[in-house]
Amino acid sequence: MNPELLISTRTRKTPFSSRVAACGAKAYTVYNHMLLPAVFLSLEEDYWHLCEAVQVWDVSCQRQIEITGKDSQKLVQLMTPRDLSQAEYGQCFYAPLCDENGGMINDPIIIKHSEDHWWLSIADTDVMLWAMGLATGFSLDVQVSEVEIWPLAVQGPKAEELITRVFGEEIRKIRFFHSRKMNYDGNEFLVARSGWSKQGGFEIYVNDAELGVQLWDELFSKGVDLNVRAGCPNLIERVESGLLSFGGDMGYDNTPFECGLDQYVSLEADIESLSIDALRTRPVKTRL
Amino acid sequence: MNPELLISTRTRKTPFSSRVAACGAKAYTVYNHMLLPAVFLSLEEDYWHLCEAVQVWDVSCQRQIEITGKDSQKLVQLMTPRDLSQAEYGQCFYAPLCDENGGMINDPIIIKHSEDHWWLSIADTDVMLWAMGLATGFSLDVQVSEVEIWPLAVQGPKAEELITRVFGEEIRKIRFFHSRKMNYDGNEFLVARSGWSKQGGFEIYVNDAELGVQLWDELFSKGVDLNVRAGCPNLIERVESGLLSFGGDMGYDNTPFECGLDQYVSLEADIESLSIDALRTRPVKTRL
Repeated sequence: MNPELLISTRTRKTPFSSRVAACGAKAYTVYNHMLLPAVFLSLEEDYWHLCEAVQVWDVSCQRQIEITGKDSQKLVQLMTPRDLSQAEYGQCFYAPLCDENGGMINDPIIIKHSEDHWWLSIADTDVMLWAMGLATGFSLDVQVSEVEIWPLAVQGPKAEELITRVFGEEIRKIRFFHSRKMNYDGNEFLVARSGWSKQGGFEIYVNDAELGVQLWDELFSKGVDLNVRAGCPNLIERVESGLLSFGGDMGYDNTPFECGLDQYVSLEADIESLSIDALRTRPVKTRL
Repeated sequence: MNPELLISTRTRKTPFSSRVAACGAKAYTVYNHMLLPAVFLSLEEDYWHLCEAVQVWDVSCQRQIEITGKDSQKLVQLMTPRDLSQAEYGQCFYAPLCDENGGMINDPIIIKHSEDHWWLSIADTDVMLWAMGLATGFSLDVQVSEVEIWPLAVQGPKAEELITRVFGEEIRKIRFFHSRKMNYDGNEFLVARSGWSKQGGFEIYVNDAELGVQLWDELFSKGVDLNVRAGCPNLIERVESGLLSFGGDMGYDNTPFECGLDQYVSLEADIESLSIDALRTRPVKTRL
């Protein structure tokens, strides 16, 4: 039996909180100062359902740190040792953020909208403050803010079938870790083929709370025969899939190498990144 | 009925968590990625007891951001518009932290240990990241870290009587918002006359988890006739006392003036502070 969580204005609800509660969320955690459901039926039952059917996840807590302005690309590249110079518009990059000692700060998905417009879809630390500090100290021409976007994930083997029923066949063309703006009832939602499971699926960057709730309801009404349920990142599935949780499995004291993130560090690239010199002198982990 | 809180390694326990649970904490919140008890009997019963007797609070979540090194004072003063130039060693300063637009970042208690050794006892945002970003960008000679200190508060009208039974009469000499190193079983704990209630009391900066638990037990065994209980920051008491909660009552979009913190902004001082120019051009709020 877990203790109770006292919800306050400091631990924010999301546009989907009433739906999540109605779907029977049994427990929550707090992530980026926001509610994240943690269990519906049980970890085991949620796991098997995720591996066999399709789930809709309220991952509003994956806050988007928006960086705009002339020096945007410079600031984002300073923060990560992953080479972003060849990034395409709409491409998603899983990337460690590291300080000048090579210590990890966070491990967001970075999305490039344009040269001067980026999003960092962050794990559970206030990355905005680090970006603001760097921008101020280096006198960069950028605006840094947390924008009102509430991601909704559709995950599981039947995710593509379900999301196609809402957005149309066009959505099948989205490649893994790429995104596209999709029309929904007169609005545009960015949709990416990504998500915090290895079961496949999509993340919808909801930018209109009311339409988001309408979308939630539509996903459920169109997914009855697919056995759609509300879900959440599942501890069993993510450990089995090797997805690390910042703050849990790794933290400020770790280098990306210690976390097995070697492939996301561009040691050979000619990039201006705070951590690259330090990381070049650290041994790359050899994984068995 | 509140939902359950799933405790993980990302939402850390404290050295006192077993004691807090044994004392009947009914609900928790997550603050600085750490458990903070929120209710014991009920908000009302906890309130009346706090106003009449003495409570021991596990406020380990008041994390200490430690800034050391040659440029420490410079960095801390950059972060706040409150003039710290006359700070005495051991003095505690409630101070807004503000960016160059005058927007609030946090409202810590700042403690000066020496010119090159400061603590920020922070509210619920990762201020360490902002300090790190500024230090990197401005090339300051500082080390910034979150240190293993778990504050314990003793609050209520009988707090001084109780804490004197543990630390001796000497502790009565500590002035409001000043601190002193007090001996406890061969160790030194910094003790300040401060706390997140207006009932009076002390905060003990526990730097040894095992001794801290021993201290917790001693406070309870020596406080039986004072009706000592475990407690926590109380919503009713803090609203009644006008204590604001960062992230709840105020946030990044507010200036200190909008939060009624005019007295903590040194508009006339000759200080090097990021926000001071912006704040000088903003109207000071006239409070009725």
